[in-house]
Amino acid sequence: MIETFCALLNQVRSGKPLVHHITNYVTVNDCANMTLGIGASPVMADDIGEAADIASISSSVVLNMGTLNERTIPSMIAAGKSANQKKIPVVFDPVGAGASKLRNDTAARLINEINISVLRGNISEIRFIAGLGSETKGVDASESDIVCADNAGQIAKNLARKLGCVVAISGAVDAISDGDKITYIENGHPLMGSLTGTGCMSSSLVGSFCGAAKTQPYAATCAAILCMGVAGDLAYEKAGRSGRGSFVAALHDAIGNMNAETLERMAKYREA
Amino acid sequence: MIETFCALLNQVRSGKPLVHHITNYVTVNDCANMTLGIGASPVMADDIGEAADIASISSSVVLNMGTLNERTIPSMIAAGKSANQKKIPVVFDPVGAGASKLRNDTAARLINEINISVLRGNISEIRFIAGLGSETKGVDASESDIVCADNAGQIAKNLARKLGCVVAISGAVDAISDGDKITYIENGHPLMGSLTGTGCMSSSLVGSFCGAAKTQPYAATCAAILCMGVAGDLAYEKAGRSGRGSFVAALHDAIGNMNAETLERMAKYREA
Amino acid sequence: MIETFCALLNQVRSGKPLVHHITNYVTVNDCANMTLGIGASPVMADDIGEAADIASISSSVVLNMGTLNERTIPSMIAAGKSANQKKIPVVFDPVGAGASKLRNDTAARLINEINISVLRGNISEIRFIAGLGSETKGVDASESDIVCADNAGQIAKNLARKLGCVVAISGAVDAISDGDKITYIENGHPLMGSLTGTGCMSSSLVGSFCGAAKTQPYAATCAAILCMGVAGDLAYEKAGRSGRGSFVAALHDAIGNMNAETLERMAKYREA
Repeated sequence: MIETFCALLNQVRSGKPLVHHITNYVTVNDCANMTLGIGASPVMADDIGEAADIASISSSVVLNMGTLNERTIPSMIAAGKSANQKKIPVVFDPVGAGASKLRNDTAARLINEINISVLRGNISEIRFIAGLGSETKGVDASESDIVCADNAGQIAKNLARKLGCVVAISGAVDAISDGDKITYIENGHPLMGSLTGTGCMSSSLVGSFCGAAKTQPYAATCAAILCMGVAGDLAYEKAGRSGRGSFVAALHDAIGNMNAETLERMAKYREA
Repeated sequence: MIETFCALLNQVRSGKPLVHHITNYVTVNDCANMTLGIGASPVMADDIGEAADIASISSSVVLNMGTLNERTIPSMIAAGKSANQKKIPVVFDPVGAGASKLRNDTAARLINEINISVLRGNISEIRFIAGLGSETKGVDASESDIVCADNAGQIAKNLARKLGCVVAISGAVDAISDGDKITYIENGHPLMGSLTGTGCMSSSLVGSFCGAAKTQPYAATCAAILCMGVAGDLAYEKAGRSGRGSFVAALHDAIGNMNAETLERMAKYREA
Repeated sequence: MIETFCALLNQVRSGKPLVHHITNYVTVNDCANMTLGIGASPVMADDIGEAADIASISSSVVLNMGTLNERTIPSMIAAGKSANQKKIPVVFDPVGAGASKLRNDTAARLINEINISVLRGNISEIRFIAGLGSETKGVDASESDIVCADNAGQIAKNLARKLGCVVAISGAVDAISDGDKITYIENGHPLMGSLTGTGCMSSSLVGSFCGAAKTQPYAATCAAILCMGVAGDLAYEKAGRSGRGSFVAALHDAIGNMNAETLERMAKYREA
């Protein structure tokens, strides 16, 4: 596995895939810089007048519901359908699913109308989409929704099978499944959960890897989330004791400097 | 007072209030991270299709006019009314009031149609709203509007009495009044005034504290602005000589690390 | 020349020009902080209800197509026309020109309907606007579009003559022309090209300088881009080996600390 992850990282860096984002205005700068840091090229284009066009020339599309609005919902549908026609992978980050009817309806609509390659969210969002009930109120995972890693893995696996896509659940241990296998990633630091946008940034990395390896969404997702976790470990080592602001800068440093040697040395994962 | 401020800080950290923001896209990332850094949970939701819903499940609502537009004005009204019905505190940051008819009209409309708990702005914005005339052209305080601390306190007090809410004026010395008492906060560094978003971040902190202490908007506002000031002092000590970029990171570090012991040691305020 | 550049920097710092931006939500925070860092005052106002008003009281207007949408296109036109009436310089950054019909049409429309003072973009964007063909797919310059500095200078000069404005092309060597002279700036570091927003930030600096020196758009543009390049050199020296996140903070440090003495010592440019 680790050889595959390292090879995929090199593929991102050499291929520079164009990653089309329709995303929120809260974390978009970090998403763009993470995409660039891992070696891909971001483009943010959310107007209905260009969403399908831009999607059609991209290597992957990331749809993120963080600041959902009536203007961009049709753009997300158009970009997703355009990507589907060209077999371009679509990554969906259902930020805040469970928190409002608008978000719930939009998540359902995107899942129904678009072939999603990868669904990535926190445990509250994924539980909601899986129909398991969720206590989420905002965009952060609710503590009462948190389950042990093996349970998260099972939820990811069942939902992946049901939806026919890769499902990734972020948490203290990340769980990723293609409906058959489950990969658990133990890298990363709790501080990441208390920063805005680490989930969104992970989705951008997933988009970058999927864009470089269109036929391997499962391995690409695992590699992307592994990179984020390892970057979190490195950032904590470098700046964690200094504080949150320094940690964010160090996270960007670590993604920019990420290479196969670091991944091999630091990766902590298991497959089930 | 300081015991109250420290107790409120601990209440934010233990209560993790959900703070609904309808805010601008310039400083929104810093606002989200400040909210998380002080221990609350931010949610940014500005679509008319969910603004009232999200407000109704939040602990407080922050309305910020920074990048006002016709799509989000009705959302601000809806969120504000929804919060009022549930007695959820509403913090209003009238960014750029005085700079355009759209901003002036919207500020007036929000103040008329919504029960505001806390109004927080710079001296130009507050002077404009108080009907005292203002030389503001953009979103920064105009130098010709700046008055001495005691005058600012008097302006805050009169406006607080008139509007029946807490009024906070940011400046070299911050002045906060509930229409009866005035608190002056002397922490903070001039560098903060030349960074985008320190005002918006203060409003997010006010929202966080008000969300954790719904019946004490005056003490909550004082505590929030004191935290921001102390964070500014700490950030300047740590990174001020390095420069503006380093200072912002250090400001986030300081808010994330803020605790009762630091507040007690560094607080510089007086009540009148 | 260097005396002029230094004098212009001092003019920005003393004059504090108000720089109205209609720009994208990806890099807007960095743009606001760069504007403040160099000594100007940013205001972001993109609603049709105030765009013309705000433009009319500003010292310059920056129009940036980064996240173009149907709501803000009319605002850009209104702001541009309002600025033209008052002889306020307009800076246009055609982000992603060449990447979609919407962007291509909007760039053409802005150039036709508004008197632009300065057009600033990467080589792919400028080639597209010059009608020279471009391989751009997203918002980053395409490697196949990159030409040697002298060719870039010639492209800038020809387009400047055709459009009757200053044209600035960012790259390893920046080329700026007023249709007569060409200035090449050799400061800066390749890392800048792999960070989101360095182009947008340059446009904000150009807006700041043009706002302080309305009758000297060519010298103002050269001075602004020189400041950005020197800041890049300083940031790389300070934080380049640490990584991308640290580099961004150092870039803001360097702009905030920029002064005539530093410019004189570090400037590397030639005029042709």
